[in-house]
Amino acid sequence: MNFELTKEFILKIELFIQEKDANSIKEICENLLAPDVAEILKALKFHEAKYLLDVFEDEFAADILIELEEDLRERLLGDLSSKEIAEEVVDNLDSDDAVDVIQELSEKKQKEVLSNIPDPQQAIDLADLLSYAENSAGALMAKEFIKVNSNWSVLRCVSEMRKQAENIDKVYTIYVVNKENKLIGTVSLKRLLLTPEKTFISKVYNNQIISVYANSSGEEVARIMNKYDLIVLPVINDNDELIGRITIDDVVDFIKEEAEKDYQMASGITDNIEAVDNIWTITKARIPWLIIGMIGGLLGAVVIGLFPIIKNNYELAFFIPLIAAMGGNVGVQSSAIIVQGLASKKLGVDNWSKRFIKEFSVSLINGVICCSLVFILCYFFYNDKPEMINLNLTVSISLLTVMIFAALFGTFVPLILNKYKIDPAVATGPFITTMNDVIGLFIYFKIAEWILITA
Amino acid sequence: MNFELTKEFILKIELFIQEKDANSIKEICENLLAPDVAEILKALKFHEAKYLLDVFEDEFAADILIELEEDLRERLLGDLSSKEIAEEVVDNLDSDDAVDVIQELSEKKQKEVLSNIPDPQQAIDLADLLSYAENSAGALMAKEFIKVNSNWSVLRCVSEMRKQAENIDKVYTIYVVNKENKLIGTVSLKRLLLTPEKTFISKVYNNQIISVYANSSGEEVARIMNKYDLIVLPVINDNDELIGRITIDDVVDFIKEEAEKDYQMASGITDNIEAVDNIWTITKARIPWLIIGMIGGLLGAVVIGLFPIIKNNYELAFFIPLIAAMGGNVGVQSSAIIVQGLASKKLGVDNWSKRFIKEFSVSLINGVICCSLVFILCYFFYNDKPEMINLNLTVSISLLTVMIFAALFGTFVPLILNKYKIDPAVATGPFITTMNDVIGLFIYFKIAEWILITA
Repeated sequence: MNFELTKEFILKIELFIQEKDANSIKEICENLLAPDVAEILKALKFHEAKYLLDVFEDEFAADILIELEEDLRERLLGDLSSKEIAEEVVDNLDSDDAVDVIQELSEKKQKEVLSNIPDPQQAIDLADLLSYAENSAGALMAKEFIKVNSNWSVLRCVSEMRKQAENIDKVYTIYVVNKENKLIGTVSLKRLLLTPEKTFISKVYNNQIISVYANSSGEEVARIMNKYDLIVLPVINDNDELIGRITIDDVVDFIKEEAEKDYQMASGITDNIEAVDNIWTITKARIPWLIIGMIGGLLGAVVIGLFPIIKNNYELAFFIPLIAAMGGNVGVQSSAIIVQGLASKKLGVDNWSKRFIKEFSVSLINGVICCSLVFILCYFFYNDKPEMINLNLTVSISLLTVMIFAALFGTFVPLILNKYKIDPAVATGPFITTMNDVIGLFIYFKIAEWILITA
Repeated sequence: MNFELTKEFILKIELFIQEKDANSIKEICENLLAPDVAEILKALKFHEAKYLLDVFEDEFAADILIELEEDLRERLLGDLSSKEIAEEVVDNLDSDDAVDVIQELSEKKQKEVLSNIPDPQQAIDLADLLSYAENSAGALMAKEFIKVNSNWSVLRCVSEMRKQAENIDKVYTIYVVNKENKLIGTVSLKRLLLTPEKTFISKVYNNQIISVYANSSGEEVARIMNKYDLIVLPVINDNDELIGRITIDDVVDFIKEEAEKDYQMASGITDNIEAVDNIWTITKARIPWLIIGMIGGLLGAVVIGLFPIIKNNYELAFFIPLIAAMGGNVGVQSSAIIVQGLASKKLGVDNWSKRFIKEFSVSLINGVICCSLVFILCYFFYNDKPEMINLNLTVSISLLTVMIFAALFGTFVPLILNKYKIDPAVATGPFITTMNDVIGLFIYFKIAEWILITA
């Protein structure tokens, strides 16, 4: 039923390509959809991918191109003239996909392609779409929609649709505009199909309509579509005129990115880099957090320097990594839970005392488990040195204290930031880790002073 | 146009509720949609929310309930009898939403509600939906769909639709079945509208159809809908009979969760806990990673213990937190970039030498910046102690080495795991941090021996 790409399939295709056997290729790909063929293309060598793409009809080939990564698409389009791109690729795509392809070309080539598009209205539409800022609603929308007038009858509506719908693959909803061309509502195809032909649209349309302006951000579009469970969202201009529509599949990527943002923030990288970016971009995104971490590390050095006790108790140094690491780990866990709770809106911000009790209990249990284990392990390790019992006590008690402190710190810093409308995710990862390091070391050496000096 | 909840609005509503002024409430809420009113409810006190919900018609109130968090919904439904839940809530919902509501009730109440549903067919449908495993395609689907026979004419199709469509709010697509009731394709409403009435469906339907079995996982559903850009996906049973359909809005949550999983893994928490879970669940999810971190910390202690140099150079201890923290931070950054690159499939796994050069360059630049800063700061800090220059050199050189090593380690561990089909995300967070701590300390003290002893 659904296609699953296998090694055998690739070997077969490669053989057919080698033999230039286009018919056999068409045959085994007969029931495949564009995203399936795109998967195959990605697995082939470049010259093979090029041959395979040429085997298919222009319309299907254009759909395949849209499913590819930018790099591969650019290379495959590289050999085509502007005229070929315009007539064979762009002309076969919906306007939102067409714009994605054109945008990747050089400015010179963009103009050439636009001037070679057969349908002048399409050329105007595409030039318009190209004019919107990247990731705005205008840049995400497509121009393919059906628009009817509220003073039309259902019959007239269907006959007008016949004209408009010819080039539109999927009709999600029909938009209703008034005399001034302002968007005032929608009417579903189902309603049209089930309503007597002479009824006026004004009697049957739904006037509850959610829309966005063309300059709204992609994030805003994602938020609205997610909130109202929309599969298609109309885009209007400043005069409330309908100028396009955005479908949910184009917005899923934004929803994904929003979810990934917190992870990147927690990992100490800014949210707009990818593994495929160049060295400078990646370096710039990473260095700020590293410098914060470095300052934290140096502060740690200062804290340790405050405690002369280490001079005569160099063994204290052994457990610095343990104390620092556990403070960091617990803090990251706690803050991640809070940040995700806030992001998913599942967490009320009001009930802080309940949150305190829960986090304290969890960290107390985890802390007691870890500190008991450490105490027992050290006890056996230092079996032959009974004088080490005080060091062991110091480490175990500090570990428990630091773990509880780090959990509360990791919980309340993001909550407090959120209360003051600061993105709580900035407080996760390197920040929490660094703060917990410094404060954890202070706790450790303070407890060491009490236990080792009074002992 | 679109609703934005303000403090003033809440105060107004609270006043009307206090005055029991239902008409004014209806008036100011007239243009709101269910998700908007749900937002208002969440901001109110419980007795206010209860009053507000009662103001609206049953059908709208049911839509509002579906938009609420489970906790609040349960409390609001708490006072209703099984008969009221069946007739006022469940009967007004689509089957997928109705099942969500019923599932939250006690088993006893579930049976009572099912037996009180007015329409016997709906009761059977809901009992069927309740029988599927949580998060399976069967549990995600709804029973509201339009099914036509391939040997019907368009005319018959429209008249049958009239019957079927009565209770279906949104018709996304029309499913076509053959004589054996097997799903064989789809026909769009647009096609029906634009095709002569006497044409047979078998002549016009689209036989390329993607579907899933009822026992497929939610993740699989999300993957398929995302891959093929579907807004609705039919669900079939083992006999290939159409039994339901899943819409994209119900799957967006899965897509989000997939994206969030890596973050949770990196933060050292298992992927199925939430801030609202109970203490034991949270503790169990967190302790394994903490024990790994603890073992790492103790290994760190062992490593430091291997180097007697610390006895006479206790100042080496000052910079342990710096070395450990920077190794950890760099490692987490590198692994996060790779894990996200792999998750988004933007990263080919074959080109490792290119990846090595890039990661080495980035870490070299970052390392040189950080180690120069550390050297300069320490130089001025220890201005009055010229004998500290060797310690300073040790720290700076170690820092550079550790940062480069940690970056390569953080890059290649997830790549290698991925090559062997292990989820690369397990290698992030606590694991990478811990390994980098231990190895980083070894590097630091080894360099310390060379520089300080030979000096």
